[in-house]
Amino acid sequence: MDIDYTWGASMTKRGTQEGKKSHKNQTVHFKNPPRIIGAYTVVGKKEATGPLGKSFHHYMEDEYFSEKTHEAAEQKMFETAIHGAIRSAKLKPEDIDMMMSGDLLNQITSSSFAARSFDISFVGLYGACSTMALTLAMGSCMVDAGFMNRVVVSAGSHFATAERTYRTPLELGCQKPPLAQWTVTGCGATVLAHEGSGPKITSATFGKVQDWGVRDVNNMGAAMAPAAAATLIAHFRDTNTKPENYCAIFSGDLGKLGETILRDLLADSGYPLDPQRYTDCGRMIYDYKQHAYQGGSGCGCSAVVLNGFILDKLKAGGYKKVLFVATGALLSPVSSFQGNTVPGIAHAIVIEA
Amino acid sequence: MDIDYTWGASMTKRGTQEGKKSHKNQTVHFKNPPRIIGAYTVVGKKEATGPLGKSFHHYMEDEYFSEKTHEAAEQKMFETAIHGAIRSAKLKPEDIDMMMSGDLLNQITSSSFAARSFDISFVGLYGACSTMALTLAMGSCMVDAGFMNRVVVSAGSHFATAERTYRTPLELGCQKPPLAQWTVTGCGATVLAHEGSGPKITSATFGKVQDWGVRDVNNMGAAMAPAAAATLIAHFRDTNTKPENYCAIFSGDLGKLGETILRDLLADSGYPLDPQRYTDCGRMIYDYKQHAYQGGSGCGCSAVVLNGFILDKLKAGGYKKVLFVATGALLSPVSSFQGNTVPGIAHAIVIEA
Repeated sequence: MDIDYTWGASMTKRGTQEGKKSHKNQTVHFKNPPRIIGAYTVVGKKEATGPLGKSFHHYMEDEYFSEKTHEAAEQKMFETAIHGAIRSAKLKPEDIDMMMSGDLLNQITSSSFAARSFDISFVGLYGACSTMALTLAMGSCMVDAGFMNRVVVSAGSHFATAERTYRTPLELGCQKPPLAQWTVTGCGATVLAHEGSGPKITSATFGKVQDWGVRDVNNMGAAMAPAAAATLIAHFRDTNTKPENYCAIFSGDLGKLGETILRDLLADSGYPLDPQRYTDCGRMIYDYKQHAYQGGSGCGCSAVVLNGFILDKLKAGGYKKVLFVATGALLSPVSSFQGNTVPGIAHAIVIEA
Repeated sequence: MDIDYTWGASMTKRGTQEGKKSHKNQTVHFKNPPRIIGAYTVVGKKEATGPLGKSFHHYMEDEYFSEKTHEAAEQKMFETAIHGAIRSAKLKPEDIDMMMSGDLLNQITSSSFAARSFDISFVGLYGACSTMALTLAMGSCMVDAGFMNRVVVSAGSHFATAERTYRTPLELGCQKPPLAQWTVTGCGATVLAHEGSGPKITSATFGKVQDWGVRDVNNMGAAMAPAAAATLIAHFRDTNTKPENYCAIFSGDLGKLGETILRDLLADSGYPLDPQRYTDCGRMIYDYKQHAYQGGSGCGCSAVVLNGFILDKLKAGGYKKVLFVATGALLSPVSSFQGNTVPGIAHAIVIEA
């Protein structure tokens, strides 16, 4: 095999571990790291009045965003965020070569309906709440390889549409159990480009599906934490780094319980996470007074924290190197009703100032 | 901009056309065309007893595939097809670097649940019935760029799960209207690799979402044909080819009506399709005696025809250069109940012997 691999370490096995056993490289190292030249976030009122409120670009006065249905509001959030990201890169939609997007609705209709408004090739991706990291990783591959010059990627969720899709219609007024999380109403979009100024994405680690047998659809943190742990361990192994090599590590939407589980799993694997260095986007986005149980969740959670707070800090020099790992719970209402467990997946990217 | 683009023609605008107006390049030309080194198909009884029956590799004796639910059967179809494709490439699952897959179920659970059984990085893609072309296109990008050495891609559908998801539960015994199609029970998987022998994928055209206002969820052919036309026109423009430059052109699952609409649209645009050269996978898969209305549909339709009949012909020398364009209707039950139209998308790949 005389092929010039652009991805790091060798593919030889290095022993075994619990669960999935191969130690194959899961990380792509970018030779021409794509730049983040534009970003935009749209959030709901609850997110706008939370601790990170000031880092978001646009907030919806009402949850319908002047549309007739929550689904139409979610679609408009995508359109607004994508247009905003392109504008913030001082570009026009016709300057963009590809759009990659995903959301939590059945058949990712928010993304694909939003794509109608753009005269751009569209690739639909589904990674549940890991979608922001997945779209950034895939978009970076397209730009790094030179297939596309500029790609806009996005992910988002809406509290009302997600509750209806995954749990119970809001009209039923069901009480949430203590381990539940609150789906973030928000959408984030990022423009990746070959050239320009802005933070760059230097590597991406693609996760494997993990299933530790969690069946409680109200405890997504526990379902997703093993996936975050597996992807982080693979990332540290593939890149020969440790948590200390990053200014900050963010998980997507594990919430308080999930964050605790992840800390335990990583400590057990020899990668203890410094409390000052690691936190979870779902934990950050709401105040304890906002009744969000374990914290924020949904594709939109990590999408708006990344495209708001984290990129702001990277641009302002507060961070030099950030590891962002977004996690998704791969369930559907049908799979849960049929008694299935909830598998999880996580994808990670490294962003450097 | 001094970047070495690997994709073909210039990005300058060349006038306008009806609908989406930019004439930006949508096609990626592969410098190191990935080889198709393995393929496998699993189908149901109706498909196995149809005109293409002999080209499929495995057929399920019963629609439950010895599982308790149709959803579990669909998941098992994916596992069987992926294992089969890897085996047919004389490889083992640990030799594969990435798995890309999608299906029609809510939150693509068949794909992601199947991914639990494999110790391989997983990327979920959603393009409705265009998913086989989308996964092949994205998988080819990953292999061509050298990010991955071997990628397994798959797409599939099951009649019973699709009817439940998109229309009415089978138990209701609803009659289908004349313009309806029959969702194929089948799953196809392909192994793409840097090296090895087999047909190669030389280019991929990524489609844009098209919406011509179709609202009838039982007339998918009409909803998808404009997307197929747009992607084919973009492909011919980007590659400077005509239909005559291909031994055969296959659309995914337009059915009889959709095929007729596509012929009309392309003839109007100056690309008349020779009846001997172009046909539709959905039209081929069932016999007129099989009561399939306009023909087959679903992700599985183009997936099994490609991985069975088309690849067989390519390997046997019957075809030298094939243009495969799979089409998807981007609807969900919720979007239709809310009165939305059905947008379509199509992605195309070129396979050469």
